[in-house]
Amino acid sequence: MSKILESRSVAPQPSKTLDAERANTDFNIDEMYEFLEGSKEKAILRQEIMSQLERDPVLKTDQSYYDLTKAEHREYTAKKIARLSQYLEQDMPDVAKFQERLNLIAIVDPQLGTRLGVHLGLFLSSIKGNGTDSQFNYWAFERGAASVRGIYGCFGMTELAHGSNVAGLETTATYDKSKREFIINTPHIGATKWWIGGAAHSATHSVCFARLIVDNKDYGVKTFVVPLRDNRHELLPGISIGDIGAKMGRDGIDNGWIQYSNVRIPKEYMLTKYSKVTDDGEVIEPPLAQLAYGALLGGRTTMVTDSFRMSERFITIALRYAAIRRQFADKGKQVENQLIDYPLHQRRLIPLLALTYGMSFASDNIQTQYSETLSELDRGAQSGDFDVLTKAIGKLKNLFGCSASLKSTLTWDTATLIDECRQSCGGHGYSSYNGFGKAYNDWVVQCTWEGDNNILATSAGRIIIQNLAKYLKTGKVSTSNNDFAFVRDYNKFKGDSSVLRDDKLNDLSSLLDSYTAVLIRLSESCIKIINENNGNSDIVSAERVALSKLFAYRFMLDKWILKINSLSKDSKIKPDLINLAKILSLYKIDEFSGFFLQFKILSTESLTNLQSVLKKLFVEIRPKIIGLTDSFKYSDFFINSPIGTYNGDAYQKYFDIVKIQNNPSISKAPYSEFFEKALHRGSIEEREDNEKSKKTLDILSK
Amino acid sequence: MSKILESRSVAPQPSKTLDAERANTDFNIDEMYEFLEGSKEKAILRQEIMSQLERDPVLKTDQSYYDLTKAEHREYTAKKIARLSQYLEQDMPDVAKFQERLNLIAIVDPQLGTRLGVHLGLFLSSIKGNGTDSQFNYWAFERGAASVRGIYGCFGMTELAHGSNVAGLETTATYDKSKREFIINTPHIGATKWWIGGAAHSATHSVCFARLIVDNKDYGVKTFVVPLRDNRHELLPGISIGDIGAKMGRDGIDNGWIQYSNVRIPKEYMLTKYSKVTDDGEVIEPPLAQLAYGALLGGRTTMVTDSFRMSERFITIALRYAAIRRQFADKGKQVENQLIDYPLHQRRLIPLLALTYGMSFASDNIQTQYSETLSELDRGAQSGDFDVLTKAIGKLKNLFGCSASLKSTLTWDTATLIDECRQSCGGHGYSSYNGFGKAYNDWVVQCTWEGDNNILATSAGRIIIQNLAKYLKTGKVSTSNNDFAFVRDYNKFKGDSSVLRDDKLNDLSSLLDSYTAVLIRLSESCIKIINENNGNSDIVSAERVALSKLFAYRFMLDKWILKINSLSKDSKIKPDLINLAKILSLYKIDEFSGFFLQFKILSTESLTNLQSVLKKLFVEIRPKIIGLTDSFKYSDFFINSPIGTYNGDAYQKYFDIVKIQNNPSISKAPYSEFFEKALHRGSIEEREDNEKSKKTLDILSK
Repeated sequence: MSKILESRSVAPQPSKTLDAERANTDFNIDEMYEFLEGSKEKAILRQEIMSQLERDPVLKTDQSYYDLTKAEHREYTAKKIARLSQYLEQDMPDVAKFQERLNLIAIVDPQLGTRLGVHLGLFLSSIKGNGTDSQFNYWAFERGAASVRGIYGCFGMTELAHGSNVAGLETTATYDKSKREFIINTPHIGATKWWIGGAAHSATHSVCFARLIVDNKDYGVKTFVVPLRDNRHELLPGISIGDIGAKMGRDGIDNGWIQYSNVRIPKEYMLTKYSKVTDDGEVIEPPLAQLAYGALLGGRTTMVTDSFRMSERFITIALRYAAIRRQFADKGKQVENQLIDYPLHQRRLIPLLALTYGMSFASDNIQTQYSETLSELDRGAQSGDFDVLTKAIGKLKNLFGCSASLKSTLTWDTATLIDECRQSCGGHGYSSYNGFGKAYNDWVVQCTWEGDNNILATSAGRIIIQNLAKYLKTGKVSTSNNDFAFVRDYNKFKGDSSVLRDDKLNDLSSLLDSYTAVLIRLSESCIKIINENNGNSDIVSAERVALSKLFAYRFMLDKWILKINSLSKDSKIKPDLINLAKILSLYKIDEFSGFFLQFKILSTESLTNLQSVLKKLFVEIRPKIIGLTDSFKYSDFFINSPIGTYNGDAYQKYFDIVKIQNNPSISKAPYSEFFEKALHRGSIEEREDNEKSKKTLDILSK
Repeated sequence: MSKILESRSVAPQPSKTLDAERANTDFNIDEMYEFLEGSKEKAILRQEIMSQLERDPVLKTDQSYYDLTKAEHREYTAKKIARLSQYLEQDMPDVAKFQERLNLIAIVDPQLGTRLGVHLGLFLSSIKGNGTDSQFNYWAFERGAASVRGIYGCFGMTELAHGSNVAGLETTATYDKSKREFIINTPHIGATKWWIGGAAHSATHSVCFARLIVDNKDYGVKTFVVPLRDNRHELLPGISIGDIGAKMGRDGIDNGWIQYSNVRIPKEYMLTKYSKVTDDGEVIEPPLAQLAYGALLGGRTTMVTDSFRMSERFITIALRYAAIRRQFADKGKQVENQLIDYPLHQRRLIPLLALTYGMSFASDNIQTQYSETLSELDRGAQSGDFDVLTKAIGKLKNLFGCSASLKSTLTWDTATLIDECRQSCGGHGYSSYNGFGKAYNDWVVQCTWEGDNNILATSAGRIIIQNLAKYLKTGKVSTSNNDFAFVRDYNKFKGDSSVLRDDKLNDLSSLLDSYTAVLIRLSESCIKIINENNGNSDIVSAERVALSKLFAYRFMLDKWILKINSLSKDSKIKPDLINLAKILSLYKIDEFSGFFLQFKILSTESLTNLQSVLKKLFVEIRPKIIGLTDSFKYSDFFINSPIGTYNGDAYQKYFDIVKIQNNPSISKAPYSEFFEKALHRGSIEEREDNEKSKKTLDILSK
């Protein structure tokens, strides 16, 4: 055989390729990991939890997961919850550790995180957030809900005809003074509680959001604990529940619908930390209405972390496969090129790696903000001191704005990342065993639940505009609004002078300035349009969404630069971190170039130069892509995707898994007999007994 | 009860809302439908076929489809194919009618279209494209493949380690002169045929793409018919086949892998329309290498039509639901606003409606191009006249470029459209019963197969650049390259003068000019960069993707304007068609504003004005959205989504379907006993027999 033939008949050797890539890493993987995780302690804790999850016989998730039916997903998820509750008892009272456990398990089995998260993070958190200490103590500890004992809770907020608008919910809780009871009622089909996770088959109790009606007066939506099932797990009278059935993803969760038909609960089942009703029916409203919503922000901040984790997983798969996959040889060469050496492939994936790095800083910051805010709120509520409360609410407002912007921006970006990574893996990205399909389907609901992304983004955009408007009016910024205080740089960036000149394209602090400038100029333009439209800010809702996204990138970049500055001068991880930060900044400037050009932050000529700076940065970071993804320290268990396997032996592992899951010795389908008969059905004339033949027609025409 | 309470407890009346919306239609729905379908005849034919599909007891697809397991999807799809083959026999020889039938069925059951399409559109088309008339006649008619009798074919092209690069495939077909046979062999795991639709359980024969080896010389990839199973449906010796298992979507297709182990086939099984091997082993190559690929473009053109059909379906659902769904009331009002009245919601959905309309013209044009090109190619091949062939190849090149741009752009846009429409429906978009999940999962493989979108888009981009380069060099355009001939407007649009001034933002032909100008200026800039980089065009691959997309929008707009101009002056459908064309043009200019500003097609000030022109157009088209989607004439059967139901009674229909599919009288899960036990497992101390109690530890410490 000729030389060409010989070389062609050699099987691909992807492991060798990946070894060679790995050898390019010029920094310490552990150091990078600790940097991304926030500290050495956090890094160690996470690895400990990860190894427990990976080895646990019940919690473990392998390729067979991708072939489960909905019924199996439901059952296995329930069994995993039973198993996890043992860890919960062990972790107590370290709730943060258990939360970390749930966050990490959500990487490979998001539905499990959610199904248990509804009970712990929504049901119990809302009792904690809206109930008195005594109420929380009863339901959580005396009854055992905190360790998933006796009680399993669901969160009865959304209704069939009301998702986003909580204030418009229609379920009623009418106070019956004579019996000191509330009557919970679903007035019509549109008010049916819908999408309630855990309601279909698990929950014994609901936290029900219902309009408080006293003496025919509507006091708006309050929260009540309403039991659904007794301790034989039988539905209580007046409670109608059904399974809402098949969903795009998260089959392991038993989402359901609930109708309450004049169900009576004791007055004491109302959660009364802030609002209460006296026996006589006097309604006492909270001092500050926002207080009731603090606990719900936990979900949003978790979703920022989820975005980071999910992005880590899928960019690792895509970059490993891009390193070992070869297509097209250069002229005169026999070995085909690695996909990652194509400029287009670099442009598709490297910015997503940079984005993932950026998310780590957003995640770390928002988690800290959340825990600090909650403890200040608690302190305020306990002390009853109005000043402490006001300060806590300032923090809450900042958290609300940041989490609205980050949750929406990053869950959208993660959906895009999973999808782009899948497409970058070609056909094999479409195989369930490589993980993209289920992950995407499970993921995208994050863009909708706990605040629809468009609603959140327009809110965050409004906050930015309001902060600038306030500054323009008063010359002051709310000191507590730290992350929105950049508006005080108005004078520095107003007007239309260029901010990002050619010689600054490679300078991180100028890049940060360019985001500050575009936020300020776009907000100012929105203020003008709103004023021209009689104060109607809906007219700039698309711009508000853009503001929210730009704010999120500015936020990440800001925290990122601070963290880079904390590194020693000769840190080995510093150069790559700086390059990745530049890539994210430049890439997003390019994506939003319409705004950056429109507001003259950079000139059209600079945009051309920006493209070539970006391309050079891709080439610089290219040799490190394997080291930079190894730094996420995901074992093959957490990757759960043969084409993203650590040792690079993608094809063999993928083929093995396909054969394990689909035994090739069974070569006929269960319906084969039917299909074979159809193939051998004979001609149409035979099957019609020749009743259209010329002979027949001759007879019939006589 | 107070007034507020009374109004709140009224169930939503969405049907009334939709009736009112429908009454705003000021044009004839039938007239619009015929315009979109291309002619009255086509419109009638399609409605006839649709009613046959809808009523057929086997082909019918209802909400139960969304709850089927993979095994059920596989079986039902096979049964539908058996049913469809009866229609096939009836339609013969009108292949176009049957193709239309398949296109229409793909709206509600895409996997069915594909599973049969592999046999008819890939297996048989490649025999027709690459085989002699006699070969085609044998396999298609004598053996019965054309009516799905006796033979079921699959298309053995892609391999485990080679997707996109057909020329790099590694399966071999070695000629054994002594026995006049080819030996088909899979040399190693990487060359395993992979993703082969129908291979796992259906196919009896494969068209195998393999490297022709004669006397140790490699002649590149040719095509061979290789039998896989005998007429008992048993695997032939040397054939190893397995199921590749679970996929992101299209569960109804039995994709498989094939390994050929030195399988011998008679020499006559090679497809020899263009390439052949004499008995002595002399290889005769085709006069023009491109000829062999003509037949494969059928898939790409079909995908342009698929994009149109799928977009019609989902924009209808999203707009109907946006019209009946209400969230948030204005101050002082009791009835909440319709979602479609929010400017952001208009901006999210109305451009997608405009895009769908644009797709109809792309689909109609590309189908005509395809059938004309194929018949010219046939004429050329039959006559053997080199001039006829050359002309046909000119047409083929144009089709190649247009279909590469349109297939990639529109399949991407359709994925985005399905996803954006889903998100616009809030949580209910995530329910399987509303159709988005399965449709998206089924859809997205269209971005990968039959030419990965990035590969196709960079090809199309290269063609545009090459056309401009040729024009700049020679002052001529290839006359056959009609759709790329706009480069001859180079002198009109070169330089950096503004093309789209403020007073032209509302003028369709100026909008078309702006696309021509951006294509020319961006191409020219690419030529410059390529020259600076020693002719390396990979460096501008991202720009080539952008060129391909901009070309697709220019293409649609061009055909659209031609069709609008054919309407009579007082046509009632004209004003909305003009507005929609403007919306699509302006919306995409905004999306690509970086390029439009960078190349000074419009000024930054004009971009601000463009935004307000767009907003005004949304408001103008807003009252017609129901009429404009009714014009697609999809019955509830084709919609298969309760929230998109024609009469608007979304909540009731959705609730009914959920109850049909998930019987609420079964209130416990099959695993309930396990779950109940876990909930009532007692405390950790009890379960551990108090072995950590103080009492125990006291004893143990003694």
